Amino acid sequence: MDYQKIIEDIYQEILPFSHQGKQADYIPALAKVNPDQFGMCLHTVGGEVYPFMKADAAFSIQSISKVFSLAMCLSLKGEALWKRVGKEPSGTAFNSLVQLEIEKGIPRNPFINAGAIVLSDILLSELEHPEEDFLRFVRSLCEDDSVDYNMEVALSERETGYLNAAIANLLKYHGTIENDIESVLMFYFKTCSVEMNCMQLSKAFLAFTNHAPFEYAGYRLSQSRIKRLNAVMQTCGFYDEAGEFSYLVGLPGKSGVGGGIVAVCPHRYAVAVWSPRLNSKGNSVMGMKALELLTTQTQESIF
Amino acid sequence: MDYQKIIEDIYQEILPFSHQGKQADYIPALAKVNPDQFGMCLHTVGGEVYPFMKADAAFSIQSISKVFSLAMCLSLKGEALWKRVGKEPSGTAFNSLVQLEIEKGIPRNPFINAGAIVLSDILLSELEHPEEDFLRFVRSLCEDDSVDYNMEVALSERETGYLNAAIANLLKYHGTIENDIESVLMFYFKTCSVEMNCMQLSKAFLAFTNHAPFEYAGYRLSQSRIKRLNAVMQTCGFYDEAGEFSYLVGLPGKSGVGGGIVAVCPHRYAVAVWSPRLNSKGNSVMGMKALELLTTQTQESIF
Amino acid sequence: MDYQKIIEDIYQEILPFSHQGKQADYIPALAKVNPDQFGMCLHTVGGEVYPFMKADAAFSIQSISKVFSLAMCLSLKGEALWKRVGKEPSGTAFNSLVQLEIEKGIPRNPFINAGAIVLSDILLSELEHPEEDFLRFVRSLCEDDSVDYNMEVALSERETGYLNAAIANLLKYHGTIENDIESVLMFYFKTCSVEMNCMQLSKAFLAFTNHAPFEYAGYRLSQSRIKRLNAVMQTCGFYDEAGEFSYLVGLPGKSGVGGGIVAVCPHRYAVAVWSPRLNSKGNSVMGMKALELLTTQTQESIF
Amino acid sequence: MDYQKIIEDIYQEILPFSHQGKQADYIPALAKVNPDQFGMCLHTVGGEVYPFMKADAAFSIQSISKVFSLAMCLSLKGEALWKRVGKEPSGTAFNSLVQLEIEKGIPRNPFINAGAIVLSDILLSELEHPEEDFLRFVRSLCEDDSVDYNMEVALSERETGYLNAAIANLLKYHGTIENDIESVLMFYFKTCSVEMNCMQLSKAFLAFTNHAPFEYAGYRLSQSRIKRLNAVMQTCGFYDEAGEFSYLVGLPGKSGVGGGIVAVCPHRYAVAVWSPRLNSKGNSVMGMKALELLTTQTQESIF
Repeated sequence: MDYQKIIEDIYQEILPFSHQGKQADYIPALAKVNPDQFGMCLHTVGGEVYPFMKADAAFSIQSISKVFSLAMCLSLKGEALWKRVGKEPSGTAFNSLVQLEIEKGIPRNPFINAGAIVLSDILLSELEHPEEDFLRFVRSLCEDDSVDYNMEVALSERETGYLNAAIANLLKYHGTIENDIESVLMFYFKTCSVEMNCMQLSKAFLAFTNHAPFEYAGYRLSQSRIKRLNAVMQTCGFYDEAGEFSYLVGLPGKSGVGGGIVAVCPHRYAVAVWSPRLNSKGNSVMGMKALELLTTQTQESIF
Repeated sequence: MDYQKIIEDIYQEILPFSHQGKQADYIPALAKVNPDQFGMCLHTVGGEVYPFMKADAAFSIQSISKVFSLAMCLSLKGEALWKRVGKEPSGTAFNSLVQLEIEKGIPRNPFINAGAIVLSDILLSELEHPEEDFLRFVRSLCEDDSVDYNMEVALSERETGYLNAAIANLLKYHGTIENDIESVLMFYFKTCSVEMNCMQLSKAFLAFTNHAPFEYAGYRLSQSRIKRLNAVMQTCGFYDEAGEFSYLVGLPGKSGVGGGIVAVCPHRYAVAVWSPRLNSKGNSVMGMKALELLTTQTQESIF
Repeated sequence: MDYQKIIEDIYQEILPFSHQGKQADYIPALAKVNPDQFGMCLHTVGGEVYPFMKADAAFSIQSISKVFSLAMCLSLKGEALWKRVGKEPSGTAFNSLVQLEIEKGIPRNPFINAGAIVLSDILLSELEHPEEDFLRFVRSLCEDDSVDYNMEVALSERETGYLNAAIANLLKYHGTIENDIESVLMFYFKTCSVEMNCMQLSKAFLAFTNHAPFEYAGYRLSQSRIKRLNAVMQTCGFYDEAGEFSYLVGLPGKSGVGGGIVAVCPHRYAVAVWSPRLNSKGNSVMGMKALELLTTQTQESIF
Repeated sequence: MDYQKIIEDIYQEILPFSHQGKQADYIPALAKVNPDQFGMCLHTVGGEVYPFMKADAAFSIQSISKVFSLAMCLSLKGEALWKRVGKEPSGTAFNSLVQLEIEKGIPRNPFINAGAIVLSDILLSELEHPEEDFLRFVRSLCEDDSVDYNMEVALSERETGYLNAAIANLLKYHGTIENDIESVLMFYFKTCSVEMNCMQLSKAFLAFTNHAPFEYAGYRLSQSRIKRLNAVMQTCGFYDEAGEFSYLVGLPGKSGVGGGIVAVCPHRYAVAVWSPRLNSKGNSVMGMKALELLTTQTQESIF
């Protein structure tokens, strides 16, 4: 499969959409990014790498970090994790409080904000050095020790993060989080602030293609558990556009408001794409298009 | 892969659950079924058939029929279908009116009752002989002309089907259905009343594995569209247990309150399982277990 | 108190609003009414009558009929009535299904459509000749035997009444109504179709001012029960504008989409006002204004 | 009217309910109160005072303080207040986040927690010394300078007040509150921590009976505005039991989780009752009963 050629063709086809949507601007650090950028990278299980355009430009991974947190929590807690958080698609926006409340404090899944805040709480309780450990895990996945938090972004998010603070307080009210709210929120915002580029992200997600035993920085997951993690991405990875992404792309994946999307084709490849302009659901316009075309042209999807 | 042996082993392992749950009893025809039955059948793309236990016992397919309706509608309307019905998981029970109302009359997906009622309305509008055509399509899929409606079941459902009548009236109020309510409901209940056995169902769903061009009784679907239909099953096929089924089984599938479940392993096999006792979400207890073990032991899932 | 003069002054003051809002037009009979009409009438407990403008023009009383149904049901069932319907304000629009569903089939109060449909069901069960009896009761209240149903309106409402049919089916599903849906709906629409003018309506509601023992056409209510009926009007009589009406007018009252509003000043007077143009909540624009000014200028309200 | 005798009779009648319900125990200060206490006091506009049992025992007024805040805000902002908060009954529990969210950050009314938190924010913005001013206003109403905050209660509430913190954060997210969250919450909890006895409370609420011009500590309200404040109490004062209280008692009133209830009979009297055991809606069991009997026996209600 000539992925380099396919990606080039895709890019030509999605150019008309390059000014559609608008980037996240709720914090200065995201608002000042040049929105008219595009990067993509594909890593195959065979070891080939296909970087394209701004594949080496770092951006804020935001919610993509939730996959790393979930992998760590699954490794630490096993199936017991699901007592703390559900695994059903939410049917509402990523930041909905209604849904959270209905479920008596148990978030619907680990990828809505409430769920990811619970993951942060678990890591705080389980690990002696949660911030170092999280970073070590991510660096191990992408084999690149330069990956780091962006403290300006994290602090900026905390300062204006009233909705996440509301969610954390509501979780605390229901007894779903153990640690103090401020620590949980700060750790959560830090994990979201991690900056990576498409090359690092596609390399990191190659670990979830089940091409080899999963053990990174001491965190192990069985083949069966990797499959399950992919299943959660498939049904819950795109907020209230999970069905749409599944329908158009047909791969497990995860998006972030920084404009990044990563997807996994089990036993074949991982792919990351980045473009800051978002659709109304908070997912990258060009990223969605690029991945839809990728699986259409390669006919490689999970279905 | 020795599927016969695997299925036998699975059956031994799930025996302890054989009296868990209880069958649907909201109409006499379902209530009088002996709940302690189990049947299973697997069809491979290579043409092998693995029937097990009561694989030839007919049962009410109920909501599994929605997949047939969706295939017909996709063939007739193409992507325009999605103007009438969404494709996002619902996050609530299959029969929820709340969700329907929130979306201004557009059902969240084709597999909640509201969505399937819209499918019935579309078929009534598009086809000259909807009842004959639906049956002809299903018979063609399973290559068995004995498949038929059970009019006693259909009439019984209509008589007590107040919730579905409420949904149909609400859809009509929103202008989402075109035909008169009574005709739509009667056709909907008829499609649900179809009786099939596991052998017929796994044969029928083999068509959705993309092993060959899809053309049955004149209805055609491209490979890409079959993939998309599988994606909808994956995210929406199990009501508010879609995430759970995806997590445990990792295959696109569809369940019915008659106790049947069918699942598709693209390019490999289709499998049907039947056992009338249901869990609290309305899905067959033994059926869920059997399929979870099948993909665990074969390591064949989409992830 | 010179009510005639006060009403005349009020009319001058509300003239600027005479073209605001728009009349109900979901059925032809309501759509064809000339919207630029205004009528008002006040009956005191002392026997004085103050008609104004089109006080003798008949209009469709619509939801105002729910007060008559409630009075009959309270007389027939006593406090046991409240097992079938609640008495809390709904916090949502009059035709909301969400609220109904949340409460497991028990409507929040007798003045949302679901609640009034339950009242109709009760009257059907309790009375041998419900249609004659209802009319007899209303005629007795206003001492005018010319009051009647408008069958054209009733049939027209039934024909397009999908939302009310949805509600009735949902109630039936929950077991909250006993009679067959069609009979309940038809009787409900008939009671809503009654035509009265402001003089008849203010006379009829004089009975609810507690100025004399309540006994009409054989239906009796104690003083205490009349107070309670007024309390329900006060908190639930204006859909999701109950708080606004209570705040601005300060009297128990009930509105209808025909443009009528009646209000009760206990031990003093009853007043009816009619003007077909409605605000966004379905209440008469000029009617609301007129009553707000009436209680402001007379300083006679319940508070 | 021999109120003393009536109150004594009432007490005998409600004795069988003296151990029903249970007191609020979410903070130590409330949990340690002896639940088996009862106090009552009635002040007439003529200057008579009818204390009964523990009428001089101080308790935490909690949500009753919201009436004082509302009076101050109405005096300061006039009708412009209603741009910040609604006046419709909520149809849900006092602490619901769902309802808040649906309305885009505008609380349904000033007596749900979200609404009262907005009142606190307004007072913080409008007043130079909000804490002193609030206290001065309350002291002026009851003519007793010994009334004070209970800082232990306030701090204890703040410490465990996750739900109110969630609400405040959500309001801040929607831009409904201006001041910093911590200040708003602390002031809110302080106002709720005020301790008063039944004599002080009934004296304070006498001001709302419209028996004399309202001017206390410089805060003025017109007769018309007092009526409107009573209307808000009538429709929103008892959370999701507002309809029930209106139905059974027929007076505007306000309850608090400390077990206190105050009610106003315009132009006649104000009455306070206290008993810590609460029903499932958070209202005092004996308090509700006592007031129901009071208006039944005196036949004095607003209806």
